[in-house]
Amino acid sequence: MPLVRIDLDESRSTEQREAISSGIHEAMISAFGIPAGDRFQIITPHPTAELVFDPTFLDVERTSAIFIQIILVQRQTKEAKLAFYADVSARLAAAGVRKEDLFIALVENQPEDWTAGQR
Amino acid sequence: MPLVRIDLDESRSTEQREAISSGIHEAMISAFGIPAGDRFQIITPHPTAELVFDPTFLDVERTSAIFIQIILVQRQTKEAKLAFYADVSARLAAAGVRKEDLFIALVENQPEDWTAGQR
Amino acid sequence: MPLVRIDLDESRSTEQREAISSGIHEAMISAFGIPAGDRFQIITPHPTAELVFDPTFLDVERTSAIFIQIILVQRQTKEAKLAFYADVSARLAAAGVRKEDLFIALVENQPEDWTAGQR
Repeated sequence: MPLVRIDLDESRSTEQREAISSGIHEAMISAFGIPAGDRFQIITPHPTAELVFDPTFLDVERTSAIFIQIILVQRQTKEAKLAFYADVSARLAAAGVRKEDLFIALVENQPEDWTAGQR
Repeated sequence: MPLVRIDLDESRSTEQREAISSGIHEAMISAFGIPAGDRFQIITPHPTAELVFDPTFLDVERTSAIFIQIILVQRQTKEAKLAFYADVSARLAAAGVRKEDLFIALVENQPEDWTAGQR
Repeated sequence: MPLVRIDLDESRSTEQREAISSGIHEAMISAFGIPAGDRFQIITPHPTAELVFDPTFLDVERTSAIFIQIILVQRQTKEAKLAFYADVSARLAAAGVRKEDLFIALVENQPEDWTAGQR
């Protein structure tokens, strides 16, 4: 039941959007063990001025931010999270998307915080 | 002070948007006991391609996803949450909105995490 | 690594948007001690009908809501949060933005919930 929000620059192509959407989902299957059918994402393109990011914070060179917020059930270990970040970075790099532009934040909740699975 | 985010397909009518907005709020009053005046919602319509959902995951037949993210103070029991899901589903069904299209995720925080009530 | 979402009325000027964006960031530096370079924000303007708010709940007179959702690492005290709210209100008031229109919600997570700092 994770809910994934992807906010990115509207100048990114449909191909890039799909690569990002798929790459995140496949990395979640691989690192978190979610079912293949458990794919729920909200993609919001923005004009450049609406995405504010520091281009060099923590010595990462960013050219355009891809913000990813994932709400998921509290169940994953720190190791699984690190594996997820590495996995999604590798998948996006393979699709020509700079991993440095990725900015991921996870937010955890409990199983009863989802309608999915309750009905 | 709950903050409700509703992301839905831009093809939904104004009437449907209002039914969804009101139905969620009335169900929160009924199941969670929030005051009638405590209504704060962000509605974001999207082109169809921006809302990614599996049409049959967990044997629910979805035709168009209505994503609802609610940030609320950690105070509600599991029973109240289940009552909320049932209540909002019933209200939306009465307004002609398929309950199967609802996808709700709750995220909890603490009273000090809100400006509302602090001033 | 906080991730700040700002949802506001599209009628607000570029100057107001920048004052809100900067005011929040500077208040986070002051009250939370985050580094100046740690600035990551998503700004989403909305038509008026998409922002639902009660104009007088809790005896605050609102004319147009500015919704601010901040995901941040669980580390700040209640005192720091209250100082943040006061600081951001003062900064926005100085820029001609009504503090009564601010609606802030904080959501906390853990250091391992961020790609930033992991690579």
